[in-house]
Amino acid sequence: MPIRAAVMTAPRAPIELWDLDDPSIDEGGILLETVASEVCGTDVHLFNGRLEGVPYPIVPGHVSVGRIIEMRGVSHDAEGEPLAVGDTVTFYDVHEVCNACYHCTVVQQPNRCPHRRVYGITYSANDGPFGGWAERIYLKPGVRVVKLPQGVPPDDVIGGGCGLFTGFAAVERSGLQMGDTVVVQGSGPVGLSAAAFAALRGAGRVVVVGAPKSRLELAQLLGADTALSIEEWSPLEREQAVRALTGGRGADVIIEASGNPAAFTEGLDMLRDGGTYVIGGHYTDTGTVTVNPHVHVNRRHANILGQWGTDFRHIVRALAMLAKHHERLPFNRVIGGRYKLEDAAQALEDVAELRVTKAIIAPHG
Amino acid sequence: MPIRAAVMTAPRAPIELWDLDDPSIDEGGILLETVASEVCGTDVHLFNGRLEGVPYPIVPGHVSVGRIIEMRGVSHDAEGEPLAVGDTVTFYDVHEVCNACYHCTVVQQPNRCPHRRVYGITYSANDGPFGGWAERIYLKPGVRVVKLPQGVPPDDVIGGGCGLFTGFAAVERSGLQMGDTVVVQGSGPVGLSAAAFAALRGAGRVVVVGAPKSRLELAQLLGADTALSIEEWSPLEREQAVRALTGGRGADVIIEASGNPAAFTEGLDMLRDGGTYVIGGHYTDTGTVTVNPHVHVNRRHANILGQWGTDFRHIVRALAMLAKHHERLPFNRVIGGRYKLEDAAQALEDVAELRVTKAIIAPHG
Amino acid sequence: MPIRAAVMTAPRAPIELWDLDDPSIDEGGILLETVASEVCGTDVHLFNGRLEGVPYPIVPGHVSVGRIIEMRGVSHDAEGEPLAVGDTVTFYDVHEVCNACYHCTVVQQPNRCPHRRVYGITYSANDGPFGGWAERIYLKPGVRVVKLPQGVPPDDVIGGGCGLFTGFAAVERSGLQMGDTVVVQGSGPVGLSAAAFAALRGAGRVVVVGAPKSRLELAQLLGADTALSIEEWSPLEREQAVRALTGGRGADVIIEASGNPAAFTEGLDMLRDGGTYVIGGHYTDTGTVTVNPHVHVNRRHANILGQWGTDFRHIVRALAMLAKHHERLPFNRVIGGRYKLEDAAQALEDVAELRVTKAIIAPHG
Amino acid sequence: MPIRAAVMTAPRAPIELWDLDDPSIDEGGILLETVASEVCGTDVHLFNGRLEGVPYPIVPGHVSVGRIIEMRGVSHDAEGEPLAVGDTVTFYDVHEVCNACYHCTVVQQPNRCPHRRVYGITYSANDGPFGGWAERIYLKPGVRVVKLPQGVPPDDVIGGGCGLFTGFAAVERSGLQMGDTVVVQGSGPVGLSAAAFAALRGAGRVVVVGAPKSRLELAQLLGADTALSIEEWSPLEREQAVRALTGGRGADVIIEASGNPAAFTEGLDMLRDGGTYVIGGHYTDTGTVTVNPHVHVNRRHANILGQWGTDFRHIVRALAMLAKHHERLPFNRVIGGRYKLEDAAQALEDVAELRVTKAIIAPHG
Repeated sequence: MPIRAAVMTAPRAPIELWDLDDPSIDEGGILLETVASEVCGTDVHLFNGRLEGVPYPIVPGHVSVGRIIEMRGVSHDAEGEPLAVGDTVTFYDVHEVCNACYHCTVVQQPNRCPHRRVYGITYSANDGPFGGWAERIYLKPGVRVVKLPQGVPPDDVIGGGCGLFTGFAAVERSGLQMGDTVVVQGSGPVGLSAAAFAALRGAGRVVVVGAPKSRLELAQLLGADTALSIEEWSPLEREQAVRALTGGRGADVIIEASGNPAAFTEGLDMLRDGGTYVIGGHYTDTGTVTVNPHVHVNRRHANILGQWGTDFRHIVRALAMLAKHHERLPFNRVIGGRYKLEDAAQALEDVAELRVTKAIIAPHG
Repeated sequence: MPIRAAVMTAPRAPIELWDLDDPSIDEGGILLETVASEVCGTDVHLFNGRLEGVPYPIVPGHVSVGRIIEMRGVSHDAEGEPLAVGDTVTFYDVHEVCNACYHCTVVQQPNRCPHRRVYGITYSANDGPFGGWAERIYLKPGVRVVKLPQGVPPDDVIGGGCGLFTGFAAVERSGLQMGDTVVVQGSGPVGLSAAAFAALRGAGRVVVVGAPKSRLELAQLLGADTALSIEEWSPLEREQAVRALTGGRGADVIIEASGNPAAFTEGLDMLRDGGTYVIGGHYTDTGTVTVNPHVHVNRRHANILGQWGTDFRHIVRALAMLAKHHERLPFNRVIGGRYKLEDAAQALEDVAELRVTKAIIAPHG
Repeated sequence: MPIRAAVMTAPRAPIELWDLDDPSIDEGGILLETVASEVCGTDVHLFNGRLEGVPYPIVPGHVSVGRIIEMRGVSHDAEGEPLAVGDTVTFYDVHEVCNACYHCTVVQQPNRCPHRRVYGITYSANDGPFGGWAERIYLKPGVRVVKLPQGVPPDDVIGGGCGLFTGFAAVERSGLQMGDTVVVQGSGPVGLSAAAFAALRGAGRVVVVGAPKSRLELAQLLGADTALSIEEWSPLEREQAVRALTGGRGADVIIEASGNPAAFTEGLDMLRDGGTYVIGGHYTDTGTVTVNPHVHVNRRHANILGQWGTDFRHIVRALAMLAKHHERLPFNRVIGGRYKLEDAAQALEDVAELRVTKAIIAPHG
Repeated sequence: MPIRAAVMTAPRAPIELWDLDDPSIDEGGILLETVASEVCGTDVHLFNGRLEGVPYPIVPGHVSVGRIIEMRGVSHDAEGEPLAVGDTVTFYDVHEVCNACYHCTVVQQPNRCPHRRVYGITYSANDGPFGGWAERIYLKPGVRVVKLPQGVPPDDVIGGGCGLFTGFAAVERSGLQMGDTVVVQGSGPVGLSAAAFAALRGAGRVVVVGAPKSRLELAQLLGADTALSIEEWSPLEREQAVRALTGGRGADVIIEASGNPAAFTEGLDMLRDGGTYVIGGHYTDTGTVTVNPHVHVNRRHANILGQWGTDFRHIVRALAMLAKHHERLPFNRVIGGRYKLEDAAQALEDVAELRVTKAIIAPHG
């Protein structure tokens, strides 16, 4: 039976519905029925042709949740939990890291392995159902799968989507100390996740800077103590507000999740001397900003850390946190719209226009 | 007997010779006969009025070596070594950190304590002999003193000067791993020290980028494996050279010691994904540079760390390294000129004009 | 007006009520009216003469909460908050760290400064009201004071008592990662605090091993997911239970808060390869245990960390966490009895006999 | 042409010379002509049947140097250097880590992967030439190979042998700070390597505790500043000597490389409060020791770290250090005897009896 998929045939071309061949399952492979995939900011960038080397036509959708309908020679997930047909799982979109190169072995940063491939981004639709905007997804041998923990509904995973794991990774990288004041710049999916995990990771106070009001309300629902609307507060007022909350010192930790280059210096201006600034989740080049290395870095004794993407460990650990705190992490509430495959173009437009924070693609409704 | 001192009376005013009153020694205080002080880049900035809040007239000279001629109620240095009149010591120019504020107690970064005072910078000459460009220096109670280890001649300490400790601090902060390729940007006193300590701290390869040729030769004498002259190599060629040395990956660690804003992006462009970039030793604002947060920080998964000044521990540890490796750390060779107090203006000019790498003030010859 | 105090005159001697002279307030000093102090395990050790060098007679009570009734030349607390007469504060019992020795300056571990003095332990009652079992406490200049944050009732601080800060310190030192399984050995005040902060710091699962049942219920109230009673489970069963929760791997982080030497090897036996084991809060020597360095440390690739006491930063940060999470940290529920000064002997006995988890001394009721 | 190999057929059975079949080279595989392998302490344990699960008969020899005589589909080593027939390489004896389990992916400690296989230990001689005591060694696809850097003779690698990498790993794990006093317990191959790398990694002073005199002389040749013979100094005298060198504080870092359980408490007794103790290189259970958790861990605020084996990164980095410092790392001097395959039993005996520090097996002389 062919697999229906929504396909980006080229940048800015209309999304088409294609029928893909059902793949044969290799030893170690898994076939998923797609429960839900997502439309994230990267998909908007893909549509606009902002990423290099993308082999259009592609089936978008890098983070997805699915139900196992067939598998060969796979018995356990990476946590060691037994896997069975019918189980609901998610998987690490990045795979085929080589485990042999300098980044994989010597510096243990597989997120920078040059051999990495990514579901929903680096495959042609002609290669097969390697993206989540499809009725079924084929997980090649070696793709790292993890079963959703008991009590974690698929909507809480996909409502967070790739932003869930990216925000988690940024918080982990920040090394925040209990009691720290954390500022999150941006209230999209990455920012919402960063705010939620900062709160669960021991922040003394979480401040989200963003817009619009509906997203800021979500941020507060997910754990932010304070929301500063960029529609109502000027950059200077934002800095003053943060300083007022911190005895004038500035934030201990700032997580950049807006993708706006101007956020970089605005954030450094409100960072405490010796504080930590993490940039997580810019998946595309959005331009430059003027920085003063002496003022912003050296005299500030700053720690400025880039977090590129996620590792598999972030997914495993984020799911463990969802399992423990599911009542405090209603990421399903972030879902602004649920779209069929034939409505993928509409979903994309709604995300691009910020009409919804998170759109999900649910091929089977 | 009055104390002769070279005094900056105001920015860009001629240096004057003053006679200061001999101080009375408080309980816990120490009077030093100055063996040697230094003229560093900060002194040039002071002369040009580039630092804020300086209470001219001042006696410059923040890092100095002296001989104890009188002390009251002091018996040991911070290492626990007994102190006696006649001992040759150096001291931490920063003092009167409050040990009570947030930076001192909660985040343990006394280098950012707002109460800190600094010899040679924050005192008026009317307050007393609180700078090294004087025949004697009065160390107030609480100033942290450390005896020069056996076998370490004063010229190796003062030849490194404050750059010795600043370069040390930058290397320590980098957390470099054994075998790493380290690039040092700048071949002034801070850069020379950073190169030397990177080599002693386990770098697999040390590359210094700087000029002129005489300084690059000093860098190689002190431990650099490769010197790239900015007079001969373009920025692109420098990047290519570093990539050629590292299998195309870029440097694992880069230490910015040039003070030139353009070095920031040049350095980030030659940093390996996941590498560490430390800015140590910009003591004054030298301007801005255009940065791409996505390219330079996020996608690079970079660690960018400011190292503001030094802590006392850097001095103690740097001296321990000088003691162990004195034959490999001939910092006395960095001294380009030895000046009497009456020639301080000349010393300042020679440093400003880059005629010498390090000028020292030796009031007693 | 004299200050009534409960005094340990000698090991195992009856507690006496003494009248101490009202101190004169030095510049920088603060006089507190005691709101509440505590009886902790260390006080039992003091009563039994288990600590060396204690200058009996002493006024016990190292962690206390008080109201400012007089102060001279003090305007702000260490967080930078303004202080006024009438404010309710706590303070860091350790003080007079020298800020000059190797531990204070070079390795930045003031908790190992040999000059440290401690309220309630290192002062003779003849020196003045330097312990919390007294109507008033005199805070000498330099004692670090912090105002209770808004919304934090004194009983939540003193109900946690010194265990609150010790447990916090142990969790901070563990460096636990979000999603980790944390085992806390011991359900006294330190263990309860460690369990509570582990949960707030991002643990995926918190297991407390202890007794009796009432304390295990408190542990669950404060954030533990699982309680294993040592009265019902054998050591082997405890290990099996922890392995069953962790896919057979063992706990990622274990915090030893029981003070029982046997806990050390029991804990190491249930630690995951590469896991972290923190010993926090043994304030006295309780004996030895037989360890196999190969099996327990080397092959396990273990991280075994001692946490000696607390630093001031732990207090500031723990209070920030109480402020944020006061509804989840009802440490007042740990208080098993509230005693007047004249009942201090009874309080001590009730703690020694484990009749109460935490006894507090409330001189004014 | 068959491959001659020295085979341990069973614990304590005579070593036999076998002829193994020449393997067929799979895609990704490499056939080496053995330049030299080694006899290390683990081989003595293997001979004595001290390791569990060893599939005798085996070809011992886990760390080896060889010359490529054939390879299929391999073009570069892990550093990215091109590989060609005739190149001299070493390789990581541990392989077939799964890159999928919890240890490989979530906590990034492949040295604890349960799927790992090890050359010279986990293969039957009937499987093929999977150990270094053979004329040729077959490297299966995925075995990580690295070319010896220019200027590094094979004897300096194999003279260090697996101890070279184990000592390196222990030093890296210690996180020593420049200027620290480092004590190495043990003067066998691991201890010699630890001393050498501690010196190159920035130690202020390296003290080796061991015996006999010839090994202590090697330690000093390789970088130790002080050697304390256990034949001449009692444990108490050793502690006093270390305290005398450190102002009474004890060593900042201690590396246990003796394998003697008693070294554990002796070492902790000479550790500075807050210092770091690493156990690296006990490859077999040598018994227990009595520890006081309060005294040795908690009050000492100690960091006690197990280092199990090595990761591939240690090999790459150690070779980079050999390349830079070859004149200071004459590990060839550690070689006490060079044995042919037919003399393997003699080599084993000479190592077991401590007649030589390092015996190498050179099948081709």
